[in-house]
Amino acid sequence: MTPWPVHGGRLSDLARFYPQAPQPWIDLSTGINPHAYPFSPLPSSAFRRLPDPREEARLIGEAARCYGVEPSCVLAGPGTQCLIGMLARILAENPASRMIRIVEPTYSGHAEAWRAAGARVAALAWGDDLSPGEKGAITVLCSPNNPTGHALDLSAVRTLADAHGRLDGLLIVDEAFADFEPQSAASLLPHPALIVCRSFGKAYGLAGLRLGFLLGSHPAIGVLRRMMGPWAVNTPACLIASEALADTAWRETMKRRVETEMTALCAVMRAAGLVHIGGTSLFALFRCTDAPGGMRPETHDETSGKTAGKTTGETTAETSGAAFRLWSHLASAGILVRRFAWDETVLRFGLPEDAAALDRLRVALG
Amino acid sequence: MTPWPVHGGRLSDLARFYPQAPQPWIDLSTGINPHAYPFSPLPSSAFRRLPDPREEARLIGEAARCYGVEPSCVLAGPGTQCLIGMLARILAENPASRMIRIVEPTYSGHAEAWRAAGARVAALAWGDDLSPGEKGAITVLCSPNNPTGHALDLSAVRTLADAHGRLDGLLIVDEAFADFEPQSAASLLPHPALIVCRSFGKAYGLAGLRLGFLLGSHPAIGVLRRMMGPWAVNTPACLIASEALADTAWRETMKRRVETEMTALCAVMRAAGLVHIGGTSLFALFRCTDAPGGMRPETHDETSGKTAGKTTGETTAETSGAAFRLWSHLASAGILVRRFAWDETVLRFGLPEDAAALDRLRVALG
Repeated sequence: MTPWPVHGGRLSDLARFYPQAPQPWIDLSTGINPHAYPFSPLPSSAFRRLPDPREEARLIGEAARCYGVEPSCVLAGPGTQCLIGMLARILAENPASRMIRIVEPTYSGHAEAWRAAGARVAALAWGDDLSPGEKGAITVLCSPNNPTGHALDLSAVRTLADAHGRLDGLLIVDEAFADFEPQSAASLLPHPALIVCRSFGKAYGLAGLRLGFLLGSHPAIGVLRRMMGPWAVNTPACLIASEALADTAWRETMKRRVETEMTALCAVMRAAGLVHIGGTSLFALFRCTDAPGGMRPETHDETSGKTAGKTTGETTAETSGAAFRLWSHLASAGILVRRFAWDETVLRFGLPEDAAALDRLRVALG
Repeated sequence: MTPWPVHGGRLSDLARFYPQAPQPWIDLSTGINPHAYPFSPLPSSAFRRLPDPREEARLIGEAARCYGVEPSCVLAGPGTQCLIGMLARILAENPASRMIRIVEPTYSGHAEAWRAAGARVAALAWGDDLSPGEKGAITVLCSPNNPTGHALDLSAVRTLADAHGRLDGLLIVDEAFADFEPQSAASLLPHPALIVCRSFGKAYGLAGLRLGFLLGSHPAIGVLRRMMGPWAVNTPACLIASEALADTAWRETMKRRVETEMTALCAVMRAAGLVHIGGTSLFALFRCTDAPGGMRPETHDETSGKTAGKTTGETTAETSGAAFRLWSHLASAGILVRRFAWDETVLRFGLPEDAAALDRLRVALG
């Protein structure tokens, strides 16, 4: 059995299959900015006391300013994942909202959340007509999309949200990777049929804080606000994000930095024969139809925990693709990237944190 | 208008009404242990990356060991408040669960959560027969109770849970202040009709981390687990709580320390003429029928933000009680304690963090 990471960032699960991999591991399996926001030292009390109501209000105010919405349209919570799950549950209480359309492929957490809430999920594809057909239709899309980079421009989002509104439906736009983009669907808010999800941890490189936002004036947001009560965001996250979201200069500088680094990453990948087929400012998706020369796959047995190693020379049908061979080769070089069940020919690469990491990737790609 | 703190810890809201109060403020308005668990320095990556699945599993394992339950009975979330709100919502989806019995007076967050979920709340009193009368009855109680200190012994909890089980009901026991108690209702788990709430932040003095647990085998816990998805607990909380919950020696030492400090606090209060009527290891409740001599109330106008000061000499009916006068007097001395809407003759005092703080309290009580 091949360990198949459901989400990025599961380095500890993988590392034991590659005991010979050079240390430290380079984790490119997530879309988290490797350059964390350099927040001011926390007061010593930050872990000890609840967030003060004024600190919570400041967080909401800075998020509102940053995302360009009214504070009343901002709900902060302990990570977008949890917010998505709670939102799905609230909406699926309405029997009319139990058929959800999700534009695939995208972040798997959306479908999981809706299924957990008891809804049925129908897949739409990028390029389909996304217009809602039925009364009460709920459509979920990620823009720019993870992992393909598909995006809807503002006028398309507006048209789609209006169409959902006419049918008492709802359009949910996950903008987890929109922080360095010139436009945001949040600028269309308040809108009766639009909810925008924003993540704090990805662009600011602080995913461990667990902070996300739902933006909008839809009644479900008010229901969630009352359900969560006060203090759903931890005090360090409250303080750090208030500072970070207000720091326009950092965001502008970081936007240019990740652009430069993405250009460098793509150049390395192209030189290794991979085809760049999409992505966002924080990750790139490559098609891999021919593994770089000289490498041999490693196979491993999850049950025994042993690495079968390069001597077997055999691959199963499951692991025969060039993308899998490259994934495995990189893992044996201590570099973790992301593969996907829905397309075994693609790999997603996050940004290496520095030139040394990019060099290790270049050398591994040989 | 008198600002009436709904919860403890709202120092910033109060401080502006008492601009002359000596600094720093001493906040005794919460039941948070002033002696925070001395956790090991966090790795520099703790804010940057998601909690690893193994770290999440370790947290669940340590919580299970600490609370004496199976890991499958542990759900960790971003603070008990949020968990209570989510649990209420999930349970209130069942129309049979829309009349909730809460043993009052207790932590107001329970009634708020159930009302937010659309349930009706009926108040029971400590001393009432708590047996469930109706099929599907849900009863909520806090043991030891905040703020009165009422507690049910284990056999009473078992009898009550069994009675709820026979009616397909549910008993929810909030043990937010049980960490230094010899017994826990968690020892009755798994039980089909019992859910126990545990808070991390209070006993360990780390409320800013936002970490709480629901313990039990009730299906609602599985529903919540799937709804929240992975990573609902932030990485610092995951690491710190794993260490803290495993530290039996610290807990034993701290239990003796807070006992000693509670004895000292109560002695100071008794000397000032207050009657100790209840509490837990982390706070004490006093009845106050005659304010210590010489002090005069301050009144303040929340609208103008001005402190009317001692010169008015007038009190309204709303502010005429001895407990309010003492609360106000302490506030003017830079000491914040907790009062309650349901009984204007009582005040709740948390533990002062050190001898100097206790001395300031003693002097203020004059």
